[in-house]
Amino acid sequence: MDMFDRLETTIRARREAGDAATSYAASLFAKGRPKIAQKLGEEAVETVIAAMAQPDKIVSEAADLMFHLIVLLADTGHTLDDVRAELARREGVSGHDEKAARAS
Amino acid sequence: MDMFDRLETTIRARREAGDAATSYAASLFAKGRPKIAQKLGEEAVETVIAAMAQPDKIVSEAADLMFHLIVLLADTGHTLDDVRAELARREGVSGHDEKAARAS
Amino acid sequence: MDMFDRLETTIRARREAGDAATSYAASLFAKGRPKIAQKLGEEAVETVIAAMAQPDKIVSEAADLMFHLIVLLADTGHTLDDVRAELARREGVSGHDEKAARAS
Amino acid sequence: MDMFDRLETTIRARREAGDAATSYAASLFAKGRPKIAQKLGEEAVETVIAAMAQPDKIVSEAADLMFHLIVLLADTGHTLDDVRAELARREGVSGHDEKAARAS
Repeated sequence: MDMFDRLETTIRARREAGDAATSYAASLFAKGRPKIAQKLGEEAVETVIAAMAQPDKIVSEAADLMFHLIVLLADTGHTLDDVRAELARREGVSGHDEKAARAS
Repeated sequence: MDMFDRLETTIRARREAGDAATSYAASLFAKGRPKIAQKLGEEAVETVIAAMAQPDKIVSEAADLMFHLIVLLADTGHTLDDVRAELARREGVSGHDEKAARAS
Repeated sequence: MDMFDRLETTIRARREAGDAATSYAASLFAKGRPKIAQKLGEEAVETVIAAMAQPDKIVSEAADLMFHLIVLLADTGHTLDDVRAELARREGVSGHDEKAARAS
Repeated sequence: MDMFDRLETTIRARREAGDAATSYAASLFAKGRPKIAQKLGEEAVETVIAAMAQPDKIVSEAADLMFHLIVLLADTGHTLDDVRAELARREGVSGHDEKAARAS
């Protein structure tokens, strides 16, 4: 199984188990969406800083970002497959047309 | 091929082609890392706002975020497989231990 | 009058006038809080990028950030004087104690 | 003295004293610009979340944001008066013209 999907499966299993004391993911779901969204934003900031100042750290920060993105998607009832479907839908549209379409 | 990897392949091909006039990805690479990192940060902000105010838009925002994360990874010489490898390395570490390890 | 307060007065006058066609501030209030918060987040990202890559641009980005912070405060019924009062309240508390207090 | 300026004076005094063990501001300067910029970004994210989910917390978050903005300005050799001068320079330019000017 793709590693991102495996992580998503684990995150969802921990949400079901609901043990915030032993699972960081479960503790995030327990804290609620504002906290999850805040963490996603903070991890993005760290990714930006790593890209500018310590590019060797960017893979680690990107992993943190993916983790929190999957949690936020799950909290809103979505999955990585939904994101894949959205990207597939956009395929074939050229980059600039795509950007214009998103801007409209 | 996994949709994320297919997008990565497309992004890298557009970077090689280098046609910033027709490719949004190529135009990002041409503008340089600060601009790419800025866009990643902005897409994360939009994802946060969507999560809080318009959850039905989160999949679209997450797709934008993935796109720009792949571009930023590519600009620093990395791939989604590097991120997958990092996540695999962390597997088996419990959430809270993992967080403590990252914080150290 | 302090320049920040003058800007706040102008922003509030434009909100009252409500002419989104001629006033950027009025157009922000018309779009609503999620859009205002998004703009604040984006300006913060630009400030971060400027600090890392183009420090000579940071004053301009900080001015943008102050503008949108004042708009967001106004949208939630607050003023810069409320922020000044909060900072005054914190005075005398040492930095690390302060941080610990905020973290608690 | 304006509270923001008083805070700026305190922050600069703590930088001079350089005692990172007792001053949070001094500890930030010691950690360097990437860490300061990261903190600014994180406080902006918290301000965004507060605006969306807990508007009664926004004054406290705005105070944190001002604190870190002053630190980041100081680290790049700038002051709040530089920001005031930039805002004064923009005065008289209508909002939309201003935005267009910034976008150009």
